Amino acid sequence: MNGAESLVRTLVAGDVNVCFTNPGTSEMHFVAALDRVEGMRCVLGLFEGIVTGAADGYYRMAGKPASTLLHLGPGLANGLANLHNAKKAHSGIVNIVGQHATYHIEYNAPLTSDIEGLARPMSAWVRTSPDSKSIARDGAAAIAAARSHPGQIATLILPADTAWNEADGIAQVPADSQRASYSPQAVDEAARVLRSGEQTLLLLTGKALTEEGLALAARIAGKTGCKVMGQTYNPRMARGRGRFSIDRIPYVIEQALPILKDFRHIVLVETNDPVAFFAYPNKPSLLKPEGCEVHRMCESGENSVAALHALADALGAKASDAKPQQLVELAKPAGALTHASIAQAIALAIPENAIVVDESITTGRGFFPPTAAAAPHDWLQNMGGSIGFSTPVATGAAVACPDRKVICMVGDGSAMYTLQSLWTQAREGLDVTTIVFANRTYQILKGEFAGVDAGEPGRKALDMLNIDNPTLDWVSLAKGMGVSAQSVTTAEDFSKALTNAVREKGPRLIEVVMA
Amino acid sequence: MNGAESLVRTLVAGDVNVCFTNPGTSEMHFVAALDRVEGMRCVLGLFEGIVTGAADGYYRMAGKPASTLLHLGPGLANGLANLHNAKKAHSGIVNIVGQHATYHIEYNAPLTSDIEGLARPMSAWVRTSPDSKSIARDGAAAIAAARSHPGQIATLILPADTAWNEADGIAQVPADSQRASYSPQAVDEAARVLRSGEQTLLLLTGKALTEEGLALAARIAGKTGCKVMGQTYNPRMARGRGRFSIDRIPYVIEQALPILKDFRHIVLVETNDPVAFFAYPNKPSLLKPEGCEVHRMCESGENSVAALHALADALGAKASDAKPQQLVELAKPAGALTHASIAQAIALAIPENAIVVDESITTGRGFFPPTAAAAPHDWLQNMGGSIGFSTPVATGAAVACPDRKVICMVGDGSAMYTLQSLWTQAREGLDVTTIVFANRTYQILKGEFAGVDAGEPGRKALDMLNIDNPTLDWVSLAKGMGVSAQSVTTAEDFSKALTNAVREKGPRLIEVVMA
Repeated sequence: MNGAESLVRTLVAGDVNVCFTNPGTSEMHFVAALDRVEGMRCVLGLFEGIVTGAADGYYRMAGKPASTLLHLGPGLANGLANLHNAKKAHSGIVNIVGQHATYHIEYNAPLTSDIEGLARPMSAWVRTSPDSKSIARDGAAAIAAARSHPGQIATLILPADTAWNEADGIAQVPADSQRASYSPQAVDEAARVLRSGEQTLLLLTGKALTEEGLALAARIAGKTGCKVMGQTYNPRMARGRGRFSIDRIPYVIEQALPILKDFRHIVLVETNDPVAFFAYPNKPSLLKPEGCEVHRMCESGENSVAALHALADALGAKASDAKPQQLVELAKPAGALTHASIAQAIALAIPENAIVVDESITTGRGFFPPTAAAAPHDWLQNMGGSIGFSTPVATGAAVACPDRKVICMVGDGSAMYTLQSLWTQAREGLDVTTIVFANRTYQILKGEFAGVDAGEPGRKALDMLNIDNPTLDWVSLAKGMGVSAQSVTTAEDFSKALTNAVREKGPRLIEVVMA
Repeated sequence: MNGAESLVRTLVAGDVNVCFTNPGTSEMHFVAALDRVEGMRCVLGLFEGIVTGAADGYYRMAGKPASTLLHLGPGLANGLANLHNAKKAHSGIVNIVGQHATYHIEYNAPLTSDIEGLARPMSAWVRTSPDSKSIARDGAAAIAAARSHPGQIATLILPADTAWNEADGIAQVPADSQRASYSPQAVDEAARVLRSGEQTLLLLTGKALTEEGLALAARIAGKTGCKVMGQTYNPRMARGRGRFSIDRIPYVIEQALPILKDFRHIVLVETNDPVAFFAYPNKPSLLKPEGCEVHRMCESGENSVAALHALADALGAKASDAKPQQLVELAKPAGALTHASIAQAIALAIPENAIVVDESITTGRGFFPPTAAAAPHDWLQNMGGSIGFSTPVATGAAVACPDRKVICMVGDGSAMYTLQSLWTQAREGLDVTTIVFANRTYQILKGEFAGVDAGEPGRKALDMLNIDNPTLDWVSLAKGMGVSAQSVTTAEDFSKALTNAVREKGPRLIEVVMA
């Protein structure tokens, strides 16, 4: 077998079963090997940001890495923004990036570039595999790096001759030596703080936001009176009826500061000291009040569920200590499309076990509280702030969980960065309902323009903040990529369209015209 | 004035009059400054690959740098693939990349990344401007770097506090000390070779492919009997009736080798020793025959037109030595859409002084000879091999040359990488006719699959090479972005549609269904 086949077989042996691909010439031996070897599902994206974002979504839902196939430096470059988001989400991914044959690089052909240099800012692990005898071992090392706790971006660069020359066979991924654990001392410290009676915030992300983690947090809150919150953005959060409903730290600094101002302690579980998303003139970067002590109970990737178990035990917090959830009645929305009526419609429509991918930006800022009473679901957010994350992540989540409905909520501005996702969803028959909020503006930037004291936007500035000229027609865009779509302008129509889309299998798009 | 305004005023003073933008929060002060300051045209792109590709096209046609505005590391990352192409085209660009306020970076907020690390592989010049007193000087240095001979990618990173704090004023761009020149010794050496009577190839790119450079090459060829060719791909070539028509070195190695096999000398003008685009098993990387001597007459960015003048003078080659061009009769195409009938239709339709942007890949491999007899035009190609270059480059070329018709020829696979260009063309009313060749496959990869001896593609491989499931509907995609479009299936209809599109002003799209 050649190097490409030894790599594909190593990936499959290492439980990497999906490859999101956008190949080129230098990857043709790898493509041929994917063709020959059983056990790897190949999913084509028409743009590399789809490929890498899908791998992020796949990891969040499957809990294990997918591979990607990218075409030299520029192919990797097109995938970097969603790798940035994946890195910040601690998603494990094995990128396979093609490269010229080793002896061809010195000639500086058009596609020659510094691939390792491009990979490094978004990767924890980067290696160019020098020859076909090394590639299986390098592939196994890449899988091990991607599977770390927390997950990591591993980028394996595959020169064409490494792929086409004769190889020795496959390599086994080293056993998972670095099992996720936690620090009992840190748990003791957290228990001491929570027993003190001083106002304490238990701030969660990562695995602490699973149903199990949240149930433990609910017991601790019930027993000690501490407040439990999530980060502003989280890779995945278990939500809905029967689950402990928590708020997140608001994005807007003026809203975050008063919520945090009375805490004497913050106990961090897989998260960090809360910071502002952006800096603004005369506003703080750190959101905690002066004098507030921060206690790190779990690092990212530590076993936070086990730590919360230990903490609950140390505090004597039992299941019966958890306060019963206030169930909000879900009402049928009516009338105009407002942020509130949209949220009502979504809360009603979310089906049992759905996956909600949220890039609704300004339109969706208020979606969280009403949907707490929806059917149980997982809620996925953008961790790196690079927009165009949601439709690819929804694509990958749907590949990982073919039996779960995916609802992707996205602003029109954001959706335009990676609209090619729709084609992959159509090709693979993925069960994704995309809701595009068409306010025809970069609404967030209008707020930010004011927030940075930049004055009143004039004509040229407004031309950079509005995207209404020409109007994007999402029904046509979706149709162009084989996804059936409809446009709605009232709350009733939206509710009906969403309910119908959720009931049927396969990709659908609903354009919610807010303008 | 604040730092942002001092930078905008420095750019305008430095003759940078266009900013292709995709801003975010950290760039709001810069946006506000663009708003206030006269003299900078702002052109919004809905994806950063449009922004950087447009700046490439602008440079190629305007001969001076535009600026771009990108949102932190991920915004830059999305623009890198077309910066790669621009770098390989030696296009000068001043990238302004937003960054968190300097004091905010240490908190590792979601959008924090190694922006300099991302910029370096595609930039000749990278600097983070540390404070508002430095930004004008740094901006002037960036302009100087971009304006070098040859042009360069300069990436200036603008922290938010550098933008919003008080600045001192504007800075002047240092005078252009590094004027393009050439080496008289290298010209003497080339003259000696050309006088020897041994078979010699004069291989051109860069400014040597202007009308003036080509006319000089025609004199030299007429006088000495040397062969004149262009690189496989060139940033810009003057073509059409009345201009010296030259062939390019074929992309396919098996076609290039026999063409080059008898040359004893290659004289390089702004180009390099010809190399294969990709490496293949058992095929050479270097295309020149054994024993062929290579003579570098001009480096990239040297004054190749002056050097060709000097060479013609040294050889006594006069205008009357140039052989008259064989004028091919342009015929009206009829019948099925074939590569030949498409080429005929294009050759007929190209209007006087048009700009042709060519990313037609496999469909267009034969377009060059028939269009040599078209009306005079410029022909722009992809220099870095990163696909998705053409629709952004066409956008920027149209901004640079509002009085010239731009014809953008692109394969359907390539067009999907950066289809958001159409929206910018609609918004700005740019005079671009986009021709999408819908063969519904990555046709080039089918050839390459065979070319690398990867065997017969099986089902999984074909699924990565065909893009016909679902079919892309380009009329809907264009309509979705405000560009009127039509689909054609016969040569007559294509010819009519193209003639009509060329006659009217403004963006149009024609889908040429090849399947």
